[in-house]
Amino acid sequence: MLEPINLDHNATTPCLPEVIEAMGYWFGHAANPASPHQIGRKARQALEDARERIASRLGAWPDEVVFTSGATESNQSALLGLAPVLAGKSPPSILVSKLEHPSVATPIEILANRGAKLFPLPVSAWGEFEPGRLENVPPGQLLLVAHLAHHGTGAIQPLAELVGKISELAPNLVRAHTDATQAVGKIRVNFHKLAVDTLAASAHKFNGPSGIGIMLVRRGKPWAPQTVGGGQELGRRGGTPSVALVVGMAFALDLAHEQMTARQTRCMDLRRAFLNRLWASCSPLEVVGPAEGQGLAHTLLVRFAGVKAGLAVMGFDLEGVAASTGSACASGSQRPLPGLELLMADEAHRREVVRLSFGHEQTVAELEEAADRIAKVILKLRGGPP
Amino acid sequence: MLEPINLDHNATTPCLPEVIEAMGYWFGHAANPASPHQIGRKARQALEDARERIASRLGAWPDEVVFTSGATESNQSALLGLAPVLAGKSPPSILVSKLEHPSVATPIEILANRGAKLFPLPVSAWGEFEPGRLENVPPGQLLLVAHLAHHGTGAIQPLAELVGKISELAPNLVRAHTDATQAVGKIRVNFHKLAVDTLAASAHKFNGPSGIGIMLVRRGKPWAPQTVGGGQELGRRGGTPSVALVVGMAFALDLAHEQMTARQTRCMDLRRAFLNRLWASCSPLEVVGPAEGQGLAHTLLVRFAGVKAGLAVMGFDLEGVAASTGSACASGSQRPLPGLELLMADEAHRREVVRLSFGHEQTVAELEEAADRIAKVILKLRGGPP
Repeated sequence: MLEPINLDHNATTPCLPEVIEAMGYWFGHAANPASPHQIGRKARQALEDARERIASRLGAWPDEVVFTSGATESNQSALLGLAPVLAGKSPPSILVSKLEHPSVATPIEILANRGAKLFPLPVSAWGEFEPGRLENVPPGQLLLVAHLAHHGTGAIQPLAELVGKISELAPNLVRAHTDATQAVGKIRVNFHKLAVDTLAASAHKFNGPSGIGIMLVRRGKPWAPQTVGGGQELGRRGGTPSVALVVGMAFALDLAHEQMTARQTRCMDLRRAFLNRLWASCSPLEVVGPAEGQGLAHTLLVRFAGVKAGLAVMGFDLEGVAASTGSACASGSQRPLPGLELLMADEAHRREVVRLSFGHEQTVAELEEAADRIAKVILKLRGGPP
Repeated sequence: MLEPINLDHNATTPCLPEVIEAMGYWFGHAANPASPHQIGRKARQALEDARERIASRLGAWPDEVVFTSGATESNQSALLGLAPVLAGKSPPSILVSKLEHPSVATPIEILANRGAKLFPLPVSAWGEFEPGRLENVPPGQLLLVAHLAHHGTGAIQPLAELVGKISELAPNLVRAHTDATQAVGKIRVNFHKLAVDTLAASAHKFNGPSGIGIMLVRRGKPWAPQTVGGGQELGRRGGTPSVALVVGMAFALDLAHEQMTARQTRCMDLRRAFLNRLWASCSPLEVVGPAEGQGLAHTLLVRFAGVKAGLAVMGFDLEGVAASTGSACASGSQRPLPGLELLMADEAHRREVVRLSFGHEQTVAELEEAADRIAKVILKLRGGPP
């Protein structure tokens, strides 16, 4: 079997060697940052230092940073923690599109089961939110939920503007939450400038360790903790925080920011080389998402006309290319991307869409090789020359 | 400053070097076990292999093992997931002692706020549960919550007998949960033989990594997931599981079991050497907990007569000995151990109790040195000869 080329970086990214090394020290030391003795204080210092670095990278205050086990917990905790806000007299409304990731969609469903009314946030054909198309202002206390960058299309949302426009249209807007999982570490993110109240992110999406995430909670905005336990994280998230994972995450985020421009340039080069090769060999194909240079360069949603995505992805796998049809979460899911119907009216077309996402640590040669392997599969499945 | 000697192993233990190395491989590989391609399948294989090993060490079926971020999440998720059981007509009852750790006590409080009635589970003067002293059978659907080994006293509970006796007394017993955080990896634990329905544990208490834990949920017993997200862990816990952390945890548990007898013997040697030295230098002192050989050998709850615990622990710290007054969870907490009033009637005495917990990786010389440093502080605080 061929050494697989990973074009599924939006599912997870490899942790960088220097990050693994930095974590080793803290895994090897008994470090409970809640212990008031010397050993504990040293761990606490490392934890708080990491918190300050993360806060500064994300335009937040250190006391707005809460460490969680990942984006799923962050999204759920941020959304369900809105209880004090949503406990108004009339049922609250949530403005949210079907394009959100399952880790957002499932807590939204919980809120809906508790009485919240859902209203669709309009999106354009390539996945940008369009607040101008909002016809009626949803009643009651209004909550806006919107991703910052999309895991499938790579669309980057002008979130600050979106919040601004919604606020103008709807003076009853009381909270805004963003799932920034695919944005943090890839583009510059400024929590305060985004004008949202809560934000979710995960280290394993930016070459940090798996098992650790970030929830940002705006100062002075009432929010109810979902896990209390021993009262860690200023009472906002119980459980001994893993100093090793937090230190690794801070280091990975620092590296991502220091190398951001270089990584973005590299990904743009990879994208061009890859797409050129694909256009030449696999047309007709369609790229679903923002124009080049507008979205995440490393993310491509591609429709290979006439080829079922499930078969394509299996074929790619046999030829040593890892790709996906949507988010990896649900075990072995081959279902199309949630909300794809908003971007593509034709159901048959939606079944032909594959997500290809690469990483800055890859090379042009690797991406061209991947394109060649993909072409082999696509041509075979289209029944053309072998 | 002296190199600190860690007598606070019940707060957290260092991850072993071979465990750190094993995790390195998986941190360095992009491994989302939910991805159906080759890279994902390899990760899934590692995850499921680890699950099977953990299940077999703990006397459970692999499909009863759910990976969480740690014991706090496991305890909360296990307890709040009882919703389908507790949704009966009359308010349910919970039989639980005040000796439980905050990660158990806080979800119990949530259940109490939702209408559950709490009944005290009687305990002996050294902390063993005494179901025989239970006077009235609590009404409604009954839930039993009891730790397996206590983080402070080191008492090991005969849990299977306890569940059996309660079942005889109370035919309305519908569920039993155990916090086995201090037991797993230290003593043999057999989930099925314990006759409980849910169990919580955490890797960083048995020389595994921080940030990962176990929840066991008995097959065929209705239980409601608390985090759904992308439907991972058979829909019982959303979020991408960290293959690296799970592999590290399984390895640490394997080592703990392979070396269990040797580690227990070592801890007994350390305990004797340490206590002999303390008796000789720091009397009067009192060991609160089970008789030697009955509890966790590495755990000592000691009352240094006439010395305030807060001052003692601070003094120890200055002399390079890390100890604690209770569980480390609440930030910098110097409060006495929860439930200590059940073991010690005199309030002034309770303020003199220190928890000293050591690790199998320590030496007799280290423990004797620790005892000498402690003696220096105790004698000084008692105003005796310097």
